[in-house]
Amino acid sequence: MGRIICAGLGPGDPDLISVRADRAVRTARQIAYFRKPGRPGQARRIVEGMLAEGAVEHPMEYPVTTELPFDSPLYNDLLSAFYDDWAARLAVLAEGGDVVVLCEGDPFFYGSFMHLYVRLKDRAQVDVIPGIPGMAGCWHASGTPITWGDDVMTVLMGTLPEAELARHMAGSDALVIMKTGRNLPRVRRALAAAGRLPDAWLIERGTMPGQRIARLAEVDDADCPYFAIVLVHGQGRRPARALSVAE
Amino acid sequence: MGRIICAGLGPGDPDLISVRADRAVRTARQIAYFRKPGRPGQARRIVEGMLAEGAVEHPMEYPVTTELPFDSPLYNDLLSAFYDDWAARLAVLAEGGDVVVLCEGDPFFYGSFMHLYVRLKDRAQVDVIPGIPGMAGCWHASGTPITWGDDVMTVLMGTLPEAELARHMAGSDALVIMKTGRNLPRVRRALAAAGRLPDAWLIERGTMPGQRIARLAEVDDADCPYFAIVLVHGQGRRPARALSVAE
Repeated sequence: MGRIICAGLGPGDPDLISVRADRAVRTARQIAYFRKPGRPGQARRIVEGMLAEGAVEHPMEYPVTTELPFDSPLYNDLLSAFYDDWAARLAVLAEGGDVVVLCEGDPFFYGSFMHLYVRLKDRAQVDVIPGIPGMAGCWHASGTPITWGDDVMTVLMGTLPEAELARHMAGSDALVIMKTGRNLPRVRRALAAAGRLPDAWLIERGTMPGQRIARLAEVDDADCPYFAIVLVHGQGRRPARALSVAE
Repeated sequence: MGRIICAGLGPGDPDLISVRADRAVRTARQIAYFRKPGRPGQARRIVEGMLAEGAVEHPMEYPVTTELPFDSPLYNDLLSAFYDDWAARLAVLAEGGDVVVLCEGDPFFYGSFMHLYVRLKDRAQVDVIPGIPGMAGCWHASGTPITWGDDVMTVLMGTLPEAELARHMAGSDALVIMKTGRNLPRVRRALAAAGRLPDAWLIERGTMPGQRIARLAEVDDADCPYFAIVLVHGQGRRPARALSVAE
């Protein structure tokens, strides 16, 4: 009985994969990865040229991506059935030896793998290899530390309500905003309301070929892929005097 | 003229270093790393057994750590002079070839290296290699994803005022609290005030030998090292219906 090994691949540059995940990918006999039908898939693209000869590939194609609203019952039913199906198939494949599931970024940080993980962890041996989160690739691409000192950092999804976005944006030093794309107009309005728009950067394909970094204020709303990340860097908040003196 | 290469080493397990940082460390002729006087240093410990024969080591020993309050003018003066001094020394060392500076975690996420980076970036070639943040090692050690869906994640320092900690804790789905140690009583009170204490975990040495995971409610206040991290996992917030329908 083999294991199901989820290999976190990091932000995109294959040189930023961990030594352990690199070894798992290069020696894998069975590989699985998510993708949209008809697309190569981001995780598969990262490992191009690394797979062993004869490795068997299992693309796990989403039954639906943006055709239905994320919260519709049909969307949920289709996705649930998809994850049920692939959890069962991976468990069967693992009977023939290890299966390596490729995941961009870090699998335990907003990763799709966790939908398989919760279905598999009690019926198979599942090993998850951490990866450098995509957001870290973005702040490195910006050439500036995201946080230092006592900075508060908040990670937000662009899908959240505008008022909630603005509240977090005003109350946090450093910001990471994911799931941008068509949510960009709302993200921009919330940043403006919180007074943070002048310091916001849009980072696309951080650490990858075609990496793009632009001031968000200068980017057109229509010109933002779903996976681009918006960053506001912390300025290095100093520790509060009262605390050190009191203790 | 060589480069100054800061190698992010990840959470502690040497197998979780990136392929690029692993190569930089193993081929380095000159190595530098921070440590407390008389201690091996966490970054140096991670690469034990990896250094090339004859590599020259430069421990950068902090002039002060916890002897003075973090916000005292003397503390700031001593640290500033220390970073000035080492920035100058690294620039001179780089004239003889590449110097690899070891940093645990990710150098651009609350890393001490950035104090050297801001002093060096305009007078030497500085390359920074991302690493898996220490917090990711901790949530992997917990065996549970930290965030999914539309979860908001906030990273907080235990040094912050209690009321501010509690406000962020109540308003965020997933929480990461660093710089715990002697701040643990305040962190605990803030979590309790925010209703999050029952779901908080204390993770020590995530991915390293001696890794420890405990419910925070069951840990003694005196029994917490500075580098232990407190986590509250997100529960996978669902997208808001109003947004999908409206768009």
